[in-house]
Amino acid sequence: MMRTRPLKVALLGCGVVGSEVARIMTTHADDLAARIGAPVELAGVAVRRPSKVREGIDPALITTDATALVKRGDIDVVIEVIGGIEPARTLITTAFEHGAGVVSANKALLAEDGSALHAAAEKHGRDLYYEAAVAGAIPLVRPLRESLAGDKVNRVLGIVNGTTNFILDKMDTSGAGYSEALDEATALGYAEADPTADVEGFDAAAKAAILAGIAFHTRVRIGEVYREGITEVTAADIASARRMGCTVKLLAICERAADGRSVTARVHPAMIPLSHPLASVREAYNAVFVEAEAAGQLMFYGPGAGGSPTASAVLGDLVAVCRNKIGEATGPGESAYTRLPVSPMGDVVTRYHISLDVADKPGVLAQVATVFAEQGVSIDTVRQQSRQDPDGEASLVVVTHRALDAALSGTVEALRKLDTVRGVASIMRVEGE
Amino acid sequence: MMRTRPLKVALLGCGVVGSEVARIMTTHADDLAARIGAPVELAGVAVRRPSKVREGIDPALITTDATALVKRGDIDVVIEVIGGIEPARTLITTAFEHGAGVVSANKALLAEDGSALHAAAEKHGRDLYYEAAVAGAIPLVRPLRESLAGDKVNRVLGIVNGTTNFILDKMDTSGAGYSEALDEATALGYAEADPTADVEGFDAAAKAAILAGIAFHTRVRIGEVYREGITEVTAADIASARRMGCTVKLLAICERAADGRSVTARVHPAMIPLSHPLASVREAYNAVFVEAEAAGQLMFYGPGAGGSPTASAVLGDLVAVCRNKIGEATGPGESAYTRLPVSPMGDVVTRYHISLDVADKPGVLAQVATVFAEQGVSIDTVRQQSRQDPDGEASLVVVTHRALDAALSGTVEALRKLDTVRGVASIMRVEGE
Repeated sequence: MMRTRPLKVALLGCGVVGSEVARIMTTHADDLAARIGAPVELAGVAVRRPSKVREGIDPALITTDATALVKRGDIDVVIEVIGGIEPARTLITTAFEHGAGVVSANKALLAEDGSALHAAAEKHGRDLYYEAAVAGAIPLVRPLRESLAGDKVNRVLGIVNGTTNFILDKMDTSGAGYSEALDEATALGYAEADPTADVEGFDAAAKAAILAGIAFHTRVRIGEVYREGITEVTAADIASARRMGCTVKLLAICERAADGRSVTARVHPAMIPLSHPLASVREAYNAVFVEAEAAGQLMFYGPGAGGSPTASAVLGDLVAVCRNKIGEATGPGESAYTRLPVSPMGDVVTRYHISLDVADKPGVLAQVATVFAEQGVSIDTVRQQSRQDPDGEASLVVVTHRALDAALSGTVEALRKLDTVRGVASIMRVEGE
Repeated sequence: MMRTRPLKVALLGCGVVGSEVARIMTTHADDLAARIGAPVELAGVAVRRPSKVREGIDPALITTDATALVKRGDIDVVIEVIGGIEPARTLITTAFEHGAGVVSANKALLAEDGSALHAAAEKHGRDLYYEAAVAGAIPLVRPLRESLAGDKVNRVLGIVNGTTNFILDKMDTSGAGYSEALDEATALGYAEADPTADVEGFDAAAKAAILAGIAFHTRVRIGEVYREGITEVTAADIASARRMGCTVKLLAICERAADGRSVTARVHPAMIPLSHPLASVREAYNAVFVEAEAAGQLMFYGPGAGGSPTASAVLGDLVAVCRNKIGEATGPGESAYTRLPVSPMGDVVTRYHISLDVADKPGVLAQVATVFAEQGVSIDTVRQQSRQDPDGEASLVVVTHRALDAALSGTVEALRKLDTVRGVASIMRVEGE
C-alpha cells in the first residue's frame, strides 16, 4: 500500500557525502519509494556556496539559509552532513522542534553532545539516526543498538579511521616513514589538506565515544576518551613490531571493567599479532570486533569512509526514519541507563613494548629489571642488542605482561631517571592477544 | 519512563536455544526491562517432554499444549524455537491471530513459506522477526533489511553452515577424509546424529533463500536454491585445491544477474583462493560478504550456531518486538516488490575445476581441448600428469575461465563420452576471484 503524498527531505550540506545522497535519492527513487511505502522528495538543499554547479540537483532547491529550510514546517526528515558542532547542533534541534526526524553523519557532534541531541529528539517525539557517523557503510550502530539489544557487550575493538590505517599500512608494506606515507595518503585523497583530525586520533576518539556509549548503555563524551595519534609512530616502531610478529594499527578500544562497574574508551596505536584478523585490514578499510556475552566474538568489516559508502548508511537511516514517520512511531532513543562512569587510562590493563637506548655495559639489564619489579610490572620478554657504536650504547627492548597502564607509565618514568638509560626510543601498547 | 505491566512472552521449544533464551531472560531481566521500557515475563514454555528437569525454569510454566499457550490471549510475544514446518507454522499464525508478535529462529519454515507468514503478520498487524534463522548471532537479517535499505545489493556470498565448515576445515588442516572429519564433528557436537540437513546443504540452502529474498526484495523459496552438499568432497579434491593455492568451502551465493532482471541462489562446495578472507574462516564460524552498489563490500563474521549465539539473536529481536508493541508500531515487513524471478543454475556464470582420468597417450589433450572449444568454454589452465601406472592412465586437471554453468556441465557430459576419458574424478566450482 503506497501513500501518495511524498515525504519531504531537507539536505544540509552537499559535499562528497551530500551530493552522493542526492544522486542516489534521484536515481533510486522508485526503490526507495517501494521500501518506504511512500515517495521521498528532495525538498531543499542547504549549501555554503550556492554558485557551485551541482549536477543532477534542481538549482531551485539550493539555498544558503539552512535555518529557514529546517523551519519550513513541511519537512519530514532532515539529513545533516555538514559536520562540526555549530551550526549543525542548532539546526538539528530546530529540525526536531519543527516536526522533522534527523539523520546525521556528524561524529564530532554526537560524541560531544549526543545526549542533549537525544533528549531533544525524545522531547519532541522525533527520530535521531546516525549509522553514518561510525565506520561509513559498515552497519555498527544498528547492530549494537538493536541486534545486540538482548546481549551484554563487553568489548568493542577496531580500526575506525581509514586515513590512519592507510598511512600505517603503507609504512608497514613499503617501509616508508610517517611523513612520506602521509604525503601519499594526501596525494591519493585519503588524507585531507589538514589531516589533524585523523592523524591525531580525534576522529577515531569521537567514534569510540559513540560506540562505547551505545555498547555499554551509558554516556561517553569524546573528552573522556584517551587519545594518542599516529604522528609519532616511526619506521623503526613498525620494524620492531615486525620482529615480534606484529603490525601497528590505530585501535579504538572500548571495554567494560572486569568488575563491571566502569568502562574505558581509548584510541592509540598498538602492536597486534599478524595472526589477528585486524592485522590484515588494508588501506582505508575499517573493521570492528564486538565481544558480547552470549553472541561471542563478531566482526564487521568494510569501507569506513568515502562518499558512496557513507551515503549508503545515510540512506538506510533515511528509509528507517521515513517508515517510522509513516507508522507514527519512533526508533530506539538513547539508552544510557547503566550510568557507568568512564575510568581514566591509568585503570586500563594492557601491555607495553618499550625500546630503550642504554649504556652498553654489564649490569644495565639488572637495573632495568629492578625498576619493573618495583613498579609491579612483570616482564614477558627482553631483547638486548649491542650496537657496537662509538657512543657505547645498546638497545634494550622489553615487552611486558598485562599490567595497569598507570603502573606501566610509572615504570617508564622511573626508567627515564636511570643514569644508564640514555633515552626511551619508543613506547607502544600491545593488543589483540 | 518504565511501564509497569510486564510484557508476556511464550517460549515454544526449550532445547539448546530455548533454554538459553529462558536463562538470559531471567539473569538479565533488569537490563532487558531497561532497554525495552517495560519488564518482560516468561509466561509459558511449551515443550514435548514435560518431565525433563529444566534448571531455572519454574515448573508451573511448562506445558505440552503449545496451541493453548499461544491462544491464551495475554501473550505479547511468541518465541518459536521448535524448528521444522509443522506445528511451527500453525502456531505462528495462531499467535498472530491472538495478538502476539513472533520471534522465530526457524530457517526451514521461513525458506519454505516465509511469504505466507509475512502476509499473516501483516494482516493482523504483528511483527515477524527472525535474525536467529540466519548465521546465529551474526547480524545479517537486520543489516540487510534495514541498514542497506537505501542501497542496492548485488551479491551475498558466504559460509552459513558451521557444521560443514568444521568438516571441510578439518579435512583441509589434517588431510582427513570426509567420513573421518564427519566423525570428529559428531564427537565434538558440531554435527547432529543425523547430519543430513547440514552435509547435504539443506540448512545452507534455507539460509540462502532467506538472504536472497531480503537482499533482492523478492521471493525466493528453498526449492529454487540450487544445492549440492559436501558428502562427495574428497581428500584428493582438497589436495588439488591446495595445489592451486585454494581451499574448499561450502558457499551460499546469491546474485543479481548482470542484466538485473533475475536472481540466482545456490549452495555448493567451491574452491576459493587462500588469499580470500573466507578461506581463513575456521572451524564452525560463519562469515558473509555483502556487495552493494554504494556501500561496496561488507563482511560479517562470527559464531553461526550454538545455544548462546542463537539466543543473543533471538533476544535482540525480542527487544525490538517488545519496543514496537509498546510504541504500537510494527517493524519492517516483507519487501518483495521487485518480483525478480529466480533463474536456474544453468544461467549462473562460474568457473570449473575438473579432474579427469585419461588414457596416457598422445593426442588426448587435443581431444579434450576440442570438447571445451565446441561447448564455448575457454580453458584457463591445464595440468597433465602421467601416473606411470599399469593401467596406462594419466591425470588431466582443467580449470576454466568464467562460463555459463549450463555450458560447463554440457562440457563435462561431452567429456564423459570420449573414449580416451576413462573417468571424471571430480568437478568443483571455483569462486571468490
